[in-house]
Amino acid sequence: MKPTWILILLLAAALLLAVSMPQAGANKENSVNAPVYTADGSLKLPANYREWVYLSSGLDMSYSPNAMNMDHSMFDNVFANPEAYKEFLENGTWPDKTMLVLEGRKAGTKVSINKNGHFQTGEVMGLEVHVKDEARFPAGKWAFFNVEDGVTGKLLPKEMDCYSCHEQHGAVDTTFVQFYPTLLEIAKKKSTLSRAYLKEEAGK
Amino acid sequence: MKPTWILILLLAAALLLAVSMPQAGANKENSVNAPVYTADGSLKLPANYREWVYLSSGLDMSYSPNAMNMDHSMFDNVFANPEAYKEFLENGTWPDKTMLVLEGRKAGTKVSINKNGHFQTGEVMGLEVHVKDEARFPAGKWAFFNVEDGVTGKLLPKEMDCYSCHEQHGAVDTTFVQFYPTLLEIAKKKSTLSRAYLKEEAGK
Repeated sequence: MKPTWILILLLAAALLLAVSMPQAGANKENSVNAPVYTADGSLKLPANYREWVYLSSGLDMSYSPNAMNMDHSMFDNVFANPEAYKEFLENGTWPDKTMLVLEGRKAGTKVSINKNGHFQTGEVMGLEVHVKDEARFPAGKWAFFNVEDGVTGKLLPKEMDCYSCHEQHGAVDTTFVQFYPTLLEIAKKKSTLSRAYLKEEAGK
Repeated sequence: MKPTWILILLLAAALLLAVSMPQAGANKENSVNAPVYTADGSLKLPANYREWVYLSSGLDMSYSPNAMNMDHSMFDNVFANPEAYKEFLENGTWPDKTMLVLEGRKAGTKVSINKNGHFQTGEVMGLEVHVKDEARFPAGKWAFFNVEDGVTGKLLPKEMDCYSCHEQHGAVDTTFVQFYPTLLEIAKKKSTLSRAYLKEEAGK
């Protein structure tokens, strides 16, 4: 074989190698977390939401001054998709396609070495997703989905209290950033706190 | 220029291209979360631990049957570095270089629209890191660090109760997986629950 042909073969091999090597971050960028809807307008619960960025938890939080008559206690955990979280760190508010998952978990006590207080059990008692999708929900930009079967969430009608309450009391862009301690600091620095929230705080 | 030389130049260019293209995930792998120690054997608190994988939270958890006499309530949040979390999903136990960060946050109540229950405030009341480093801690493999200044954690001596308690009661590899609901399911499936924990559970 002539040296020229050996070179051509080597060149072909090198080009093949260059093309076949995936670029940095390609895997990550192909798996962007964006809302996925079913044909009937429901939302698919993102299967990996527990690996998203944790915002905060509450225990038995209630908007009513009367204590709830529950025979159990419940934790609420909130997770944000990493893309939205990163933009919040930069801008102090949520970008389009933000998804916030609220997970309710039954609280346990007096198990193993725990003798007081509460911990989270394996019993998921509720799942809701708050989605910002400006093209799909042009009026309010955000929508709530209630996931009852652990797989897909039904769109909650915009007449429900959750919409008006979030609009009237949410510290940033209709979301309860006042209960997400690390994000509240960012929002203060970026001056993105809502007028309604600032008024409420000033009136105390 | 002879065709042979053109081919050599093209070959060199193609090889350069192949070598210079970073591989998939390279960015991620360069920023692996591994324990970093100071000259005096303290641990640097990983600055981004809040973006790690959330395991669970508790409120006022106590190993003592007597309620604590505290004038406040406190949440505990636990985060694992993503590399260790991924291996746990696969194997049901922790790999070398695992870091678990325990963050204590003062609980608030009756703020904004919240009238009952507890939420997490901006006040961090404690930070501890549980590190698995087999080369550094050959005897017990794990060590505890207490972060008082928010920057570096002092190594806790192995005579302290936390070591013996975790060894005697931790559900998996001296860690309290019994309080991390999603990981407990994995450990059951992978049969990695500790003998001590199984005995405790059976004796109930």
